[in-house]
Amino acid sequence: VRVGTGYDVHALVPGDFVTLCGVRIDHDARLDGHSDADVALHALTDAILGALGDGDIGAHFPPSEMRWRGCDSAVFLADALARMAARGGFLAHADVTLIAEAPKIGPHREAMRTRLAQLCGVALDRVAVKATTNEKLGFVGRREGIAAIATATVRLPLP
Amino acid sequence: VRVGTGYDVHALVPGDFVTLCGVRIDHDARLDGHSDADVALHALTDAILGALGDGDIGAHFPPSEMRWRGCDSAVFLADALARMAARGGFLAHADVTLIAEAPKIGPHREAMRTRLAQLCGVALDRVAVKATTNEKLGFVGRREGIAAIATATVRLPLP
Amino acid sequence: VRVGTGYDVHALVPGDFVTLCGVRIDHDARLDGHSDADVALHALTDAILGALGDGDIGAHFPPSEMRWRGCDSAVFLADALARMAARGGFLAHADVTLIAEAPKIGPHREAMRTRLAQLCGVALDRVAVKATTNEKLGFVGRREGIAAIATATVRLPLP
Ligand SMILES: [Mg+2]
Ligand SMILES: [Mg+2]
Ligand SMILES: [Mg+2]
Repeated sequence: VRVGTGYDVHALVPGDFVTLCGVRIDHDARLDGHSDADVALHALTDAILGALGDGDIGAHFPPSEMRWRGCDSAVFLADALARMAARGGFLAHADVTLIAEAPKIGPHREAMRTRLAQLCGVALDRVAVKATTNEKLGFVGRREGIAAIATATVRLPLP
Repeated sequence: VRVGTGYDVHALVPGDFVTLCGVRIDHDARLDGHSDADVALHALTDAILGALGDGDIGAHFPPSEMRWRGCDSAVFLADALARMAARGGFLAHADVTLIAEAPKIGPHREAMRTRLAQLCGVALDRVAVKATTNEKLGFVGRREGIAAIATATVRLPLP
Repeated sequence: VRVGTGYDVHALVPGDFVTLCGVRIDHDARLDGHSDADVALHALTDAILGALGDGDIGAHFPPSEMRWRGCDSAVFLADALARMAARGGFLAHADVTLIAEAPKIGPHREAMRTRLAQLCGVALDRVAVKATTNEKLGFVGRREGIAAIATATVRLPLP
């Protein structure tokens, strides 16, 4: 078993929805970024790449390349999962923590878990989505952005 | 093995003690929150829930409910541990990191580990408590709050 | 398997290079700290100590002691690895995430991984180095400091 951790942040700017764990949520702001700015999927992608020791999301999908503009972040996650599968690996567990003052994540948690399980091709019980505010402190607390931490438990065969 | 991560923050407000890992420490401020605001226990509770894929502390213990007011956070941890036990799970390891400019954690580390081991019902060597400052940077550095990160290694039987 | 997490921050001050994962990188600032201020090695050291439940880097190497002044942080990592080896442990995986607006980590990733694998005495595929910016938000975004998160997957024999 190898465990990887991913961390990501995107800024909130004027807009009317955010995409988190592949689920669109109406909001009084949107996440800024080259792709769809899904911090949760970005963090999970990096967590898997971290468990594999295979670069990071910025290396495989450079923000400088126009073709990732507005891209569905599921593409990035699928790439990390394909790298894992190519090594004979299996995603034993994915745990995503969203750090945001708003929107409320609870009402969307099960939709997010279902979407993540689908994207990862694992049973629902292998996927966790949690959320917390930053108690109005720091950049998250000032609603300047949303952060995400993800932890991936990956089983890899011996080399 | 499934690994979950928890993150929590509470604001520091005028007061004279904080409760961290269930240990009361004299301080020149207190942690604000609905319960006893023990960031360390909250992060560990969420780490275990993350490993289980079973909601988060805010879902099981909504701050909106008056009955959790001033509550000992050991109650939240016990609930997560009971959910784990109901699934046949075992807490292989709990690692808590406190991020705080003050108070000093070192003198209280062993009391905290002992308390956590007791609360979790595991041997002392399965519990870690670490601390670091934020080098005077950000909201932690300005002593506006204390943050905690916890990692739970959970053994679950196959479904 | 036991998983530990480490977190560290150091402030950026006027200077002309930083040391990250033991690799010197030219930069328009330097990291401030008692030792060489290698946040990545500090976070990884703490992650291993967290998996062992054996104190933290500040406990074993107090900043108050003059002898660690300007010290190569490889010394701290070697100490944590020795503690692990004394317990019969094995480092199954090390995942380091750097959170910095600059310098760019990508061009140095493989040098960092090679150095970490060497320091840890493990195969290159057991070491990951990832990086992300904080999207100009918070103290990292203002280039006031660099943060690092590390996750160590440690195999320990049963006691
Ligand atoms: Mg991103
Ligand atoms: Mg809390
Ligand atoms: Mg340090």
